[in-house]
Amino acid sequence: MHRCQPPDAVVWPQNVEQVSQLAALCYSQGVPIIPFGTGTGLEGGVCAVQGGVCINLTHMDKILELHLEDFSVVVEPGVTHKALNTRLRDSGLWFPVDPGADASLCGMVATGASGTNAVRYGTMRENVLNLEVVLPGGELLHTAGLGRHFRKSAAGYNLTGLFVGSEGTLGLITAATLRLHPAPEATVVATCAFPSVQAAVDSTVHILQAAVPVARIEFLDDVTMDACNKHSQLNCSVAPTLFLEFHGSEQVLAEQLQRAEEITQDNGAFHFSSAKEAEERSRLWAARHSAWYAVLALRPGYKGYSTDVCVPISRLPEILVQTKEDLKAQGLTGAILGHVGDGNFHCLLLVDPEDPEELHRVKAFSELLGRRALALHGTCTGEHGIGLGKRQLLQEEVGAVGMETMRRLKAMLDPRGLMNPGKVL
Amino acid sequence: MHRCQPPDAVVWPQNVEQVSQLAALCYSQGVPIIPFGTGTGLEGGVCAVQGGVCINLTHMDKILELHLEDFSVVVEPGVTHKALNTRLRDSGLWFPVDPGADASLCGMVATGASGTNAVRYGTMRENVLNLEVVLPGGELLHTAGLGRHFRKSAAGYNLTGLFVGSEGTLGLITAATLRLHPAPEATVVATCAFPSVQAAVDSTVHILQAAVPVARIEFLDDVTMDACNKHSQLNCSVAPTLFLEFHGSEQVLAEQLQRAEEITQDNGAFHFSSAKEAEERSRLWAARHSAWYAVLALRPGYKGYSTDVCVPISRLPEILVQTKEDLKAQGLTGAILGHVGDGNFHCLLLVDPEDPEELHRVKAFSELLGRRALALHGTCTGEHGIGLGKRQLLQEEVGAVGMETMRRLKAMLDPRGLMNPGKVL
Ligand SMILES: Cc1cc2nc3c(=O)[nH]c(=O)nc-3n(C[C@H](O)[C@H](O)[C@H](O)COP(=O)(O)OP(=O)(O)OC[C@H]3O[C@@H](n4cnc5c(N)ncnc54)[C@H](O)[C@@H]3O)c2cc1C
Ligand SMILES: Cc1cc2nc3c(=O)[nH]c(=O)nc-3n(C[C@H](O)[C@H](O)[C@H](O)COP(=O)(O)OP(=O)(O)OC[C@H]3O[C@@H](n4cnc5c(N)ncnc54)[C@H](O)[C@@H]3O)c2cc1C
Repeated sequence: MHRCQPPDAVVWPQNVEQVSQLAALCYSQGVPIIPFGTGTGLEGGVCAVQGGVCINLTHMDKILELHLEDFSVVVEPGVTHKALNTRLRDSGLWFPVDPGADASLCGMVATGASGTNAVRYGTMRENVLNLEVVLPGGELLHTAGLGRHFRKSAAGYNLTGLFVGSEGTLGLITAATLRLHPAPEATVVATCAFPSVQAAVDSTVHILQAAVPVARIEFLDDVTMDACNKHSQLNCSVAPTLFLEFHGSEQVLAEQLQRAEEITQDNGAFHFSSAKEAEERSRLWAARHSAWYAVLALRPGYKGYSTDVCVPISRLPEILVQTKEDLKAQGLTGAILGHVGDGNFHCLLLVDPEDPEELHRVKAFSELLGRRALALHGTCTGEHGIGLGKRQLLQEEVGAVGMETMRRLKAMLDPRGLMNPGKVL
Repeated sequence: MHRCQPPDAVVWPQNVEQVSQLAALCYSQGVPIIPFGTGTGLEGGVCAVQGGVCINLTHMDKILELHLEDFSVVVEPGVTHKALNTRLRDSGLWFPVDPGADASLCGMVATGASGTNAVRYGTMRENVLNLEVVLPGGELLHTAGLGRHFRKSAAGYNLTGLFVGSEGTLGLITAATLRLHPAPEATVVATCAFPSVQAAVDSTVHILQAAVPVARIEFLDDVTMDACNKHSQLNCSVAPTLFLEFHGSEQVLAEQLQRAEEITQDNGAFHFSSAKEAEERSRLWAARHSAWYAVLALRPGYKGYSTDVCVPISRLPEILVQTKEDLKAQGLTGAILGHVGDGNFHCLLLVDPEDPEELHRVKAFSELLGRRALALHGTCTGEHGIGLGKRQLLQEEVGAVGMETMRRLKAMLDPRGLMNPGKVL
């Protein structure tokens, strides 16, 4: 969707002092600055639309501090979520936010990422305790104060929260202090097929209302299931499906599983199966995490674009049904999957990059879907961010005073408009 | 601690249009504006240090929208957390954030409040989905867009988070969209006495590490226990004590309770008792929530002041022991209690309001404690806010660039410095 626009230069700083010097130099010379994490962002956030210098932070990849007793860690921007969890293995703790790609943790801060575990553990917004930020002019800001890593605070304005989701437009994040969680003692996964989208969503609402502390609850539509069956050698029903995961002690898991099974069966589920062994569990989640590639494989040579709306959960059935109809009406190939416990879903659209007319239809579909979500009190982006393509939708979402406030924030921190220009606003 | 300074006038607007007109009028005339929720704030937030108009929002007390299926509610600023939970009774949902006083929910947004349930359900920061704010000049801002109430979003800068904890210095909150949680199916409370502060804190860390999903874990020192015994007719050991609460199904509760008992006993607890019946549970929590008054009753005629530091949990034992010594050295009467699962504790200091010398010692003690917390990577306020008295500590906490960023934020939204002047910065 977003044509790659290369920067004039790429630099790989080794430490925060170099980042600060680079920022000061670029800023004083009027040169745009584009922060780069691992480049897995889906909204064109690293496109250099006005040229400039791309600051690639992958060489800064140290875990700077690990406070196991305090459930916190400080990472440099080159550390990815998988690298962190590898380091944490056997510590009894983990970091749960897991976008499908192995993104950098600071890139995840920058986009306000979430993923499959957010329904229980929150998104990046709830899991960042402090940030070290190089402001556009090179100054160093510690959003919660230098070296601080408390669980909560009411001291002054929430500067940390301001930078989470700022998509590189307010400063460069050079270290993040994150909240860790105790690793689950045991885990069980279940899959469950339904006669309709409505039945799958109703089950989700009922499971949440019953306070079953589900760790993951993911929806995959028939198209996605079909693609996953082929790509990941699964043997699941080609029907609207939920993938669920529960965390807890053995005893607690058995109870949660039973509850979830009862609820889904009350809603007409025709297949419920669970897996406890690590191997089978990984196979299922690997399939879920490969869904993007499985769908791409449906039409070799095509490119994919993912929508990302999020609505109040009760509005999910109508928007999902409508989306299916829109796909048909537009003659587009699209698979739907989503973090349904949060009301967030993606429609993976396949498009022939050589066909400008199809590209146009995909864009139109994506905007229509964004507006449908807005009309249902939702948001045009649950987790991928605004980037290049959703700036118009953002205006419709937050309104004139909201936009004006965001513009003034941007002007306050980046008066020359050089931090990742052309994004968000 | 904070001498009451009355405003020049108090107004009781009935709706948001009136609030907006009032703000526009005051602002254009250069008159300070002081928002007032229920006046339970502990940091002098409603003192009219420069005179002006106090906007008392208690008459706007409607629950505007209730979306049970979506786990969200919209409240006007006069609705308190108890009023909301009364309304929610029998709905299967509740709002868990519970400061000891029956504060207004928008006041709780303004101070970034938390309380005893934060260890499991988060603070206000994690439970606000959208805010309607009258900006100083009278303009109306919907921080997440008009009428939106999704669970998560990555759309633009987090304006909602900016107003949580802004203590009335950036605008008047005229409605809050809050996240609701499923009411626990069953609840059990336990109390547990320890030979030392260290043993109580070690137990807390171990319980959290073992992923026992404790809903409340409160620490009360020997002085507090003594006061509670007398004031609330309890018969507990006069020793460092934990009050715990667990939420879940009957079966899950039994397991959680057993785990907690094992852990506390491994740490030398000499008394562990639990209560399941609603009556006995309310008696215990009523005692906990009356601790403030129980301690005040120790010295009739005296006033109380509560400190509010928060540190990384592993540093709690040393700061608690040190605080006890400081109290003794300064000849002050103080009781310690706290939300120990978050690393947050209060020292309730009793002071003779007629004795300026004692008042001086209390202030000095409070500042010393704030600095001790800062030295341990903590914060000078976990939940009460900066208000009038902690502005110097805030500077030490966030540093020069942090302060400068906060000042620029304030100047951006309130260029004439008329919104609750003299607070926070
Ligand atoms: C297969 C696949 C599945 C995905 N699944 C999910 C999912 O489930 N949930 C989800 O949230 N996302 C998902 N994503 C999107 C992506 O992984 C996230 O947006 C991720 O947070 C991007 O991180 P990154 O390090 O790759 O950032 P980049 O792509 O490098 O950058 C993204 C944006 O952040 C800025 N940025 C990056 N690093 C910094 C920094 N250190 N300081 C300041 N600004 C910075 C960039 O300028 C850019 O605007 C998926 C992507 C793919 C390819
Ligand atoms: C016995 C006791 C126990 C307490 N326990 C706790 C506790 O456990 N946890 C905790 O966090 N706090 C606790 N508190 C403190 C207090 O209850 C909280 O700070 C609460 O959030 C204040 O809410 P309020 O409505 O009373 O606000 P107020 O006291 O009226 O105002 C507090 C501040 O917020 C601003 N404000 C209020 N309403 C608005 C609005 N609508 N828009 C903009 N600004 C506004 C005011 O200008 C002021 O700066 C306790 C207080 C007492 C007396």
